[in-house]
Order: sequence, then structure tokens, then C-alpha cells
Amino acid sequence: MQLAFLGTGNCAGIPVYGCDCPICSDSRSNPELKRGSLCARIVTDQQTVLIDAGIPYLGDICPAEQLDLILLSHYHIDHVMGLFPMRWGVRSSHIPVLGPDDPEGCADLLKHQGIFDFSRTLQPFETAKIADLEITTVALNHSRPSLGFCLATTDARLAWLADTCGIPEETCQFLQAFQPEVLVLDCSFPPLTEAHKSHNDITTALAIHREIQPYQTYLAHIDHSLDLWLRDNSDTLPEDIHVARDLMTISL
Amino acid sequence: MQLAFLGTGNCAGIPVYGCDCPICSDSRSNPELKRGSLCARIVTDQQTVLIDAGIPYLGDICPAEQLDLILLSHYHIDHVMGLFPMRWGVRSSHIPVLGPDDPEGCADLLKHQGIFDFSRTLQPFETAKIADLEITTVALNHSRPSLGFCLATTDARLAWLADTCGIPEETCQFLQAFQPEVLVLDCSFPPLTEAHKSHNDITTALAIHREIQPYQTYLAHIDHSLDLWLRDNSDTLPEDIHVARDLMTISL
Repeated sequence: MQLAFLGTGNCAGIPVYGCDCPICSDSRSNPELKRGSLCARIVTDQQTVLIDAGIPYLGDICPAEQLDLILLSHYHIDHVMGLFPMRWGVRSSHIPVLGPDDPEGCADLLKHQGIFDFSRTLQPFETAKIADLEITTVALNHSRPSLGFCLATTDARLAWLADTCGIPEETCQFLQAFQPEVLVLDCSFPPLTEAHKSHNDITTALAIHREIQPYQTYLAHIDHSLDLWLRDNSDTLPEDIHVARDLMTISL
Repeated sequence: MQLAFLGTGNCAGIPVYGCDCPICSDSRSNPELKRGSLCARIVTDQQTVLIDAGIPYLGDICPAEQLDLILLSHYHIDHVMGLFPMRWGVRSSHIPVLGPDDPEGCADLLKHQGIFDFSRTLQPFETAKIADLEITTVALNHSRPSLGFCLATTDARLAWLADTCGIPEETCQFLQAFQPEVLVLDCSFPPLTEAHKSHNDITTALAIHREIQPYQTYLAHIDHSLDLWLRDNSDTLPEDIHVARDLMTISL
């Protein structure tokens, strides 16, 4: 299994519009510091899968006939943005999009599905077997119906937990048993004195990492305030915790 | 007044995802043929205005402190897409966004306005004077509440009519009196045997041009099927009708 991060930022992306903090300022001249909204491509032996779709111009990266499946954690705009122009594309068959049961969807995406097929929704802790992928959903804590995804092939196990603030006990127990090699985890903010209601700060993310004990954790959905904090504090992170970057690839 | 087209395509953009027509194929290697969704920047002596916001990464083109006003024709996603990440930006004051009274808005844009201020809506045939711009709205024919904009300074008159299929009689009469130097007009499709319910084809667009008699008309909101038709037929267009292109600039 190959994982390529296409976007690792939160809803604002980096640079944040109009922001002159050191991270946003530097990112305007250093593309490596930029972050699009959350999105990744997963390639297995048998299929190519998008997981979340927060960035524009996905068509340049995922040719239509080479994209087999899309997994959506939830229907906030920063996780589905890239699908709007794509839906009017040309393709020999519809692309299945699996996500939570959220009839509101996002804007008119579910009303005008185009080349996508949103008809199958998943409940938390449901397993779907699609070609060589076993996909099990887990419950998350977010302001919209949201799913985490545990993806397993015969030789790889990936967990994708975004967006969430902490995780429900049942999700924690499932992940402890699942033993992901790679955990991708919502970590939006530096340590907060008061918990955010929808996203993890680094303190909560580290606690989740300790509880689940994956082989490696990649922090994603990153706000510029976290990148700024990491400039001075990244060496305090455990060796098995990494900060995801746009275009970073991981082999599992 | 300076007008810069930032996006001149319809909801699919060009290239259309997965499309191998000659236009879409050529556009993948020739960026000049690409089209983002509709968006333009207007600069007058006193202000910078965005009119529609269909493209991503607007922050790179319109720095926050140099953007004074946004005009939205309507709340379809391909006209507001660029505003979603921008709203979480940093700015000394809110940016007013003037558009139709459409409480549904698009996704959660009106619920979470961020640096924007959507509080003032306009009715058709209402005039707002903002710094050196006199802005008069006109009614359009579209599937959502939609406004055309007639923009006048002391020495320039621009009309922006998108999205629409034909125009109401009252709008036609207003524009005949307004006498725009430049008319930007929804022209999505080549000649259709059956009229589209929401957009002009070239036949309808030419009829509107003849009725209004602007000094120049620029066709925009262009589908790849129109670009393909224009490859063989652009020399049939009257000399005062032009096909807009992304990044084209016009001085009025």
C-alpha cells in the first residue's frame, strides 16, 4: 500500500489568507511549506483510492479511469471541495463514494452527483470489502457525522482519523486491536488551554497515539498555529510521530 | 476601470475531468486553453473588487488588504468556491460581499462568514454607491436567485450577466439605457437545438448582444463544447464579440 498526502492542512490551508505569521509568510516563497486541505491518495495492488478530497485540481493528479473509489470522512467543504468540478467529468462508469450517512451532504453535491455514486453510506464500525481492501469505519467526535477509516490489505494496515476531537472509547478499543502500522490523525492545533470542540490539539493527539500505539503516527489537518509551534518544539515529539507534508509519500 | 478575467469557464472548468476531446486534451499541455470557473477582478481608481469567485487560490491574486468588495451573482458552488478557505483569513476589517437574497447560500458559507460580511443583500434593479462605483443590479433567468451587475464609474460602464438563460425584458430595457462599453455574458454552449434552461448558448448570446448593443461583448462561463465549436466557427462571430480567456485584461 502506498499513501500519498495531497493536502495536509485544515480548512484555511497554508498560507492563511492575509496572514503574515512566519509560517504563512515563508510559505509564500517556499512551496514546501504550503498546505492544501486534507486529501490523500492510496494505491494498492488492485486499486487507487482517494481519501477525503479537500484540494482543487485533483484531476491533474488522479486521472479519471485510474480512480476506483473515494472515501469521505465527512461532508465539510474542506474535505469535499475537489469533487465539485470533477463530478461533471467523463468516465465509463460511476466512481463509488463511501462516506457517512449525512443527507445534507455539502452544497448540491448529493443532488447533482455527476460521475460519482454516493448511494452507499457506511455506519460506524461497518466493514466493506472492496477488491483487495477491507475497509472498517470507526466513530469520531466531530460537529458533523464523521467516520474514521481502517484500511487493511493482506500486508498493510492504515487508520485515517480526521476530523475528530479525541476519540470515542469504542473507537480506541477497535484501533488497539487493529494495530495500524500507520495512523493518520487530526492534529490541528498546538497545546490549547481549553480543548477545541471539533479538532485535536497536539496534547490530545499525543494521548491518542499513546493509547493506540500504532507503529507510526502522521499528524495532519494542520493549522498554521501548529506549524508555528512546531518550529520551536518539533524535537519534543516522540520518534514515532511525524508531521505530514503535502506530497509526502509513505510505503506500508 | 481595469477588468481581469481570473476564470472564464463553467462549473466543470477546462480540462473537464477525464475528457479527451481536442480542447480538453490540448489544454493539459497548453495552460492558455485552461479555464477556471467564473471570476474576475475589477480595479478602479479607488478600489479592488472581485466579481464572482469560482477559482481556488484567490489569495495569491488578491491580497487581503487590497481587496475592498466582493460581488456575487449567485450562490452556486462554481461562483463562490474560492471564498471558503479565504474566509478564515486575517484582515483588519470585514470584506463586504454583496449578492442576491438567498438565505440558503452555499454549504456553510453564510453560517461561518469569517472575514466576510454577507449581511447586505441586493434586490434586482437596486443601486448601491460604493466609493467610486455605482452598482445597479438587474434580474437574470437562472435556477437560483441570481443578479447581473451594471458597474459605472465616471468614465466606464461594465455589465456582468452570469448566470442566465436569456434575459428578462426589464433587464434588456435597463441595459439598452445603460449602454455598457463592455458586456460580459454567460455563453456556455454552442448552438443548441433545444434551449438550455439555465445558460445561454451562442445563438441566445448573440441575440442578447444585438438587443443591448454594447460597444464590446465578452463571452464567458464557457463549456468545453463551446470551445470545440469555436475552433471551426470563431470567424463567424461579429467583430465586437470576443471570447474571454483566463488572465485576459481589459481597460475601460
